[in-house]
Amino acid sequence: MTITITAFERSPDGGMGLARDTRVRWALEETGQPYEVRPVSFAAMKEPAHLAIHPFGQIPTYEDGDLVLFESGAIIFHIASHYPGLLPNDANARARAITWIFAALNTVEPAILELVTAKFLEGDKPWTKERLPLIADRIRERLRLLSARLGDANWLDGEFSAGDLTMASVLLRLRPSGLLNEFPRLADYVARSEARPAYKRAFADQLAFNTGAPPAR
Amino acid sequence: MTITITAFERSPDGGMGLARDTRVRWALEETGQPYEVRPVSFAAMKEPAHLAIHPFGQIPTYEDGDLVLFESGAIIFHIASHYPGLLPNDANARARAITWIFAALNTVEPAILELVTAKFLEGDKPWTKERLPLIADRIRERLRLLSARLGDANWLDGEFSAGDLTMASVLLRLRPSGLLNEFPRLADYVARSEARPAYKRAFADQLAFNTGAPPAR
Repeated sequence: MTITITAFERSPDGGMGLARDTRVRWALEETGQPYEVRPVSFAAMKEPAHLAIHPFGQIPTYEDGDLVLFESGAIIFHIASHYPGLLPNDANARARAITWIFAALNTVEPAILELVTAKFLEGDKPWTKERLPLIADRIRERLRLLSARLGDANWLDGEFSAGDLTMASVLLRLRPSGLLNEFPRLADYVARSEARPAYKRAFADQLAFNTGAPPAR
Repeated sequence: MTITITAFERSPDGGMGLARDTRVRWALEETGQPYEVRPVSFAAMKEPAHLAIHPFGQIPTYEDGDLVLFESGAIIFHIASHYPGLLPNDANARARAITWIFAALNTVEPAILELVTAKFLEGDKPWTKERLPLIADRIRERLRLLSARLGDANWLDGEFSAGDLTMASVLLRLRPSGLLNEFPRLADYVARSEARPAYKRAFADQLAFNTGAPPAR
């Protein structure tokens, strides 16, 4: 069986790697799993065929034989729990690594999503200019605590894990805002993540997919 | 070993059950695990002793022997994967149930958190009145698709699972807004969840904890 994921036919970010298929591609690269990508257009995402595999009409999805999953966090967790490379074997260390997946998605990313909402869905509203500093301060509070926890370590808890993969993916969304660079430890953490060969392959592949150019490796 | 969780010394919601320890209490009740609750004051939450177990200075946390976890989603997942009652045995069904945990936390809850932010953190801002309908419409879009997927089923995928526990907990946050009742299938789904004996015990216990009254059972 070949693993098949879905991705935007053309990502709105033009291949900056911020669409959520990049996270899944990265997890598949870290675990050495080959996969195919099926493009989905914006129109097709809201049609019954796609809604049957993704109830919220988004990407990515994950198909492997008769298993169909949606939601990038769930897919990353599934890959990490089925193939070695993204979760420690020790039960307690494994539970802690999984905790960081959830912390990235439910404590750090919602604050960042408010910034995305403000810029892209309310960018034309008169209040947005005044709201942006409030949103930025709420993000800073999360980043300050995350940076304090990371300290001088390379990764959040021991070896690189699916928790780091998810957290780095979430933090990457902040780079255009400049907020990430206010926290040098976190900026280094993201740079360290991006330097991983598996990330580089995933990024190059999504870029090629979104620009129609062959991946430069 | 006794499982110990943390909760607000006095929840800001006064015992409405919306603080995130309720989700964890519910999971522990569904799986029949006894537990103790350690109250944490708002001041103590930001002190080093608590930050050492919860890097973002929040509740709940989960301690069991030398395992220390934070983040309610991660704790629910940990309980569900270690004790029977909240995840199916079939591998594919299990992966799908876990997917709903992530969908609740990363697709549905962020839209709802924007409402919480607008009401509680930006309630005094001049733009909030005009923003609330925009936020409500974005929540409605999620609810519309969730309701369509649920259809006439009792639960999101087969038997009640940790995915339903998490989704119902997230949807409960919407009740004060009136949005939940616009989607009768989802309102029924939440009512069905609240009718579970384990939820009733968890709710009664958090209410007693927050009001200082003994649980009424």
